[in-house]
Amino acid sequence: MAKQILKAGTSLTPIPASIISCGTVEGKKNLISLAWVGIVNSDPPMLSISVRPQRHSHQMIKDSGEFVVNVPTRELLEAVDYCGNTSGRDVDKFAGAGLTALPASKVAAPIVAECPINLECRVRQVIPLGSHDLFLAEIVAVQANDEVLENGRLSAAKVHTIAYCSGEYVNVQGGLGRNGSHFRKK
Amino acid sequence: MAKQILKAGTSLTPIPASIISCGTVEGKKNLISLAWVGIVNSDPPMLSISVRPQRHSHQMIKDSGEFVVNVPTRELLEAVDYCGNTSGRDVDKFAGAGLTALPASKVAAPIVAECPINLECRVRQVIPLGSHDLFLAEIVAVQANDEVLENGRLSAAKVHTIAYCSGEYVNVQGGLGRNGSHFRKK
Repeated sequence: MAKQILKAGTSLTPIPASIISCGTVEGKKNLISLAWVGIVNSDPPMLSISVRPQRHSHQMIKDSGEFVVNVPTRELLEAVDYCGNTSGRDVDKFAGAGLTALPASKVAAPIVAECPINLECRVRQVIPLGSHDLFLAEIVAVQANDEVLENGRLSAAKVHTIAYCSGEYVNVQGGLGRNGSHFRKK
Repeated sequence: MAKQILKAGTSLTPIPASIISCGTVEGKKNLISLAWVGIVNSDPPMLSISVRPQRHSHQMIKDSGEFVVNVPTRELLEAVDYCGNTSGRDVDKFAGAGLTALPASKVAAPIVAECPINLECRVRQVIPLGSHDLFLAEIVAVQANDEVLENGRLSAAKVHTIAYCSGEYVNVQGGLGRNGSHFRKK
C-alpha cells in the first residue's frame, strides 16, 4: 500500500460525465459535456457546474441564466465525447451527436430527450475561480424516464451511467444498497 | 421513453461517495462521508465540499481551513456508510470504521491510509447556501497508491470506487477509454 505523492491535480473520482444543454428549443441552442459538476446543497436543491469562459456555452448560460444537466447512459458515450470535444461555434451539436431537444418544464433551455434524467437549473451566482467560472444553480425541476424509476423515485440499479476519472471514462452500474443499510447491518 | 416530472431534488448521478478527514493526526480528528463533492476548477486545481453546519466536521474544517478528500474503494463500503451515519461527537470514527490516519504531505489533516487516492485541500472560501455551507478549496497535493497508477498517473481501469445515486450506493468499475478517443474514432 505504498503511497506516491503526485502533482496536485483534479484526481477526484467518480465524477459525473454530464451533458449540459443551454439556449432555447426553437432558437440558438448548444450542448457541452462537463464533469466539473456536483451537488452543492439539499434545501433548496442546488448544483454547480464549472465552465471555461472561452467555451461557447459559457456566454449562453451567463446570458440566459438557465441550463439543464442531462445524465447520459453508457449507450451515449460517443455523444458525450463528441459534445466535450467540439464547439457550438463550429457545429450544430444536437445534429452532430444525434440528440433531440425537447422543452423543459420550468426553464427555456431544452432537455436532451435521450438522457434518462434531466435537471432543470437556474443560475443563482457566478464565481470566477481561475481557469473556470463556477455557476451555482438551483435545481428547479427534474424529469426522468420511466425506465429509471421505481415507485416514482430514481433507482440506482436501473441507471447505467458514465463517470469520469482523470481524463478517462468509467463504467457505472449496479446498485450497492441504500445509504445507512450497510452500517445498520453491523 | 416517457418522461415524468419529479419533485425538484438532488438527482444527479454518479457523484463521488467520499470520506473526508479533518483535524490533526496526533490530536482531535474526524471523518465524514460526503457525496456533495465535486471538481470546480482546473488551474489552480480546486474542489468543493458541502457540509451541513450541524455536522461535527463542519466546525473542525472551518477552524483549521484544511481537510483531505479520500477516495474509497468498493471494499470500504461499510466504512463509508458508517462514517456518513455516525457523529464524531459520539464515536471515534477512525477506530469505529477500522481506518488508519497517516500524515498528509502539505496539510495538518490526516489522510486515510486505506483509500487509494487522497486529495489534500486548503479552504479558500465558504459560501452558505441554505442547508449546507459550500467549502471551495484548493487541492494542494495528491497522494495515490501504486496499485491505482500506471506510468505515474491515475488509471481509471485500476480504480474500483463507489458512486452515490439518490440515496443509494452504486458500483464504479471498468475503464471506457480516454476523453476524445470515442469522438476521434468516428
